[in-house]
Amino acid sequence: MRPTPRPELFPAHTPAAPQIFTIVLSHGPLTRAEIARRACLSPAAVTKAVRPLIEAGYLVEDVDEESRTALGRPANPLRVDGGRALFIGLKVTGDEIIAVLSDLCCRIRVARHVPLGDREPKAVLAEMTGLVHELLTEAEGFGVQVRGVGVAVSGDVDRAAGMVRYSPFLEWREIPLAELVAMTTGLPVTVDNDVRALTVAEQWFGAGVGLSDFALVTVGAGIGCGLVVGGRVVSGAHGVAGEIGHLSLDPAGPQCHCGNRGCVEAIAADSAIVRDVRTATGTPVADAAEALELAHRGDPGAREVYARAGEAIGRAIGSVVNLLGPERVIISGEGLAAYDLFAEQIRDAFAASAFGTAGRCDVRTRPLPFEEWARGAAATAIQSFIRSDTHKE
Amino acid sequence: MRPTPRPELFPAHTPAAPQIFTIVLSHGPLTRAEIARRACLSPAAVTKAVRPLIEAGYLVEDVDEESRTALGRPANPLRVDGGRALFIGLKVTGDEIIAVLSDLCCRIRVARHVPLGDREPKAVLAEMTGLVHELLTEAEGFGVQVRGVGVAVSGDVDRAAGMVRYSPFLEWREIPLAELVAMTTGLPVTVDNDVRALTVAEQWFGAGVGLSDFALVTVGAGIGCGLVVGGRVVSGAHGVAGEIGHLSLDPAGPQCHCGNRGCVEAIAADSAIVRDVRTATGTPVADAAEALELAHRGDPGAREVYARAGEAIGRAIGSVVNLLGPERVIISGEGLAAYDLFAEQIRDAFAASAFGTAGRCDVRTRPLPFEEWARGAAATAIQSFIRSDTHKE
Ligand SMILES: [Zn+2]
Ligand SMILES: [Zn+2]
Repeated sequence: MRPTPRPELFPAHTPAAPQIFTIVLSHGPLTRAEIARRACLSPAAVTKAVRPLIEAGYLVEDVDEESRTALGRPANPLRVDGGRALFIGLKVTGDEIIAVLSDLCCRIRVARHVPLGDREPKAVLAEMTGLVHELLTEAEGFGVQVRGVGVAVSGDVDRAAGMVRYSPFLEWREIPLAELVAMTTGLPVTVDNDVRALTVAEQWFGAGVGLSDFALVTVGAGIGCGLVVGGRVVSGAHGVAGEIGHLSLDPAGPQCHCGNRGCVEAIAADSAIVRDVRTATGTPVADAAEALELAHRGDPGAREVYARAGEAIGRAIGSVVNLLGPERVIISGEGLAAYDLFAEQIRDAFAASAFGTAGRCDVRTRPLPFEEWARGAAATAIQSFIRSDTHKE
Repeated sequence: MRPTPRPELFPAHTPAAPQIFTIVLSHGPLTRAEIARRACLSPAAVTKAVRPLIEAGYLVEDVDEESRTALGRPANPLRVDGGRALFIGLKVTGDEIIAVLSDLCCRIRVARHVPLGDREPKAVLAEMTGLVHELLTEAEGFGVQVRGVGVAVSGDVDRAAGMVRYSPFLEWREIPLAELVAMTTGLPVTVDNDVRALTVAEQWFGAGVGLSDFALVTVGAGIGCGLVVGGRVVSGAHGVAGEIGHLSLDPAGPQCHCGNRGCVEAIAADSAIVRDVRTATGTPVADAAEALELAHRGDPGAREVYARAGEAIGRAIGSVVNLLGPERVIISGEGLAAYDLFAEQIRDAFAASAFGTAGRCDVRTRPLPFEEWARGAAATAIQSFIRSDTHKE
């Protein structure tokens, strides 16, 4: 048995410490005065909060004697020492697990993929445990301990409880995943919805940096949405939030696996597109890649299916924007491979459904490779570590 | 000319003061220790922040020598002195203006209604100015100054800019209302969307007290929604938020005034119900009251129209809950008069469309008379006063 690492806590002696650390992580290097301005705190409160973080090596000060202020206060910028701790992020899809070893700045150091044969929780847990142990071995080469594991799963995930309530692609219900992974790895574990996890990474390091209100919409096997409102990722009182895929767009639309008709997912997810391309063209396409190829070859029936999917996605984005008025909507996900086939319809349907000035919202695409989703999982582990609220064994 | 009152600023010497004041306003009387716990602040920070508020008379301490702690610290509860300042709230509808004089605790002291003949901005401004001067005269009897005016208008309102961007019922576009009312009254003015204003009052004093995430859905002439996420009323990056009325539910549905088809308002607002009851029954009902009477007399065609409206409202609430996962949805508005006709459909459609645990959200009704909307406007004026961010002349 591998020895369980000693739990070392993040030195958050004041309630402001996690907030300050996150600001430096996203925007650093920053001086104490710049941190105080961004956090709406007094410079004294910042100085007090950062002292233990510097002493413990999580923040470092690049000393520059030239930059002392007239009063002699240190004006040196602070930055996060990425090498101070390591984290593991796992993204579980219906067919594979992607695992990354990341540093404290969420830079990927090592990445691994394994295909998933069996979706039974027990089999998936064994694969996950194997990957974590592989990455723990890799981590030894860095001479730094792994402080936590983040796991990202699609569906209804209750992060606070560490429970996967319902994951349609895995066909899981009420799986206490955080507890299970903590038992087999001996590490603190955070389990979150995959789109919310990716949203954390976008907020800290991606197209959401500096925005207090944005949405990340992912298209592909499912249609998901991560929401940041007032600077915080929305997680829902009962764990469900951002379920854009089950916005009801058409009472006469196709049947959805959730039991309703005309959900966005029932029109625009990969499986819906494959089904509709088969019906429209008579060609028995096997999967989304074949449906896409047919459309790219110019088949009008297949192209029409993508156009309808784009219209549904655009109307759904319109709903998000009418309710929340975000500054930006980022569209990503593996479904972006079809972007040339539905970009115009997304834009037009969004513009038509946006009410008043809500239409000023900046809607943009951003390809994020699958490793980014595992990086998002690592970001949730970092988040839990600095807030000291992970599930422990 | 009435002399312009001397501007007296709220003594918010620390950034925490507005937050602390709002906590005492909603939850008081509270001891300093209780305030510290709720605000996630140190007791020392609370003691520092409340001192100037007590000295200026906004907070009062009920001295009780029995309740000294062992250390001799004051354990007396603090409460807001409602009589310390007055505010005016105005709600402008398509047919009338409701005005209230409220104290600092948002208790209504005087209320006035005037019918609105002409909806031209100039005519409405003259009526509003007249009402404000009437209430200023009433205020003299209290011996306390009026510190601000709040104006609530339906539609796309940019509070930060003080602009009514687009109000369908008034047929206004780009009216700098805050500046205009500030000029004619000499008072600081806050202009906000009417549902958002009502949401502030619900958050401070109503069914939203103590909840960090809730939605207020109003049904009637329009279908509106106020959202509180992470303890803050969502206002949208460009001023639009909570536009539940223009969620698109059915691409084959009736035409909406926004240009789309099948919006919630095009199915469930008063004018849509009147239109559909006429078509379904052949009876030329003149307004919502007559349509309601026909349905209450048991006309099956009219009842069916209300059932469809209820289904649309329930599906729209399902969309809000799937995206944001609030703890509670409060349904209010003058349309509640028809509640017996569509309550079941709202509940059923909500339950069917809620994804996973999102369905655990507490959906309840709460009748709020029209004066409450003007009280909401007064609440926004109080909010601006304590944050010191009103539009001044
Ligand atoms: Zn669905
Ligand atoms: Zn509409």
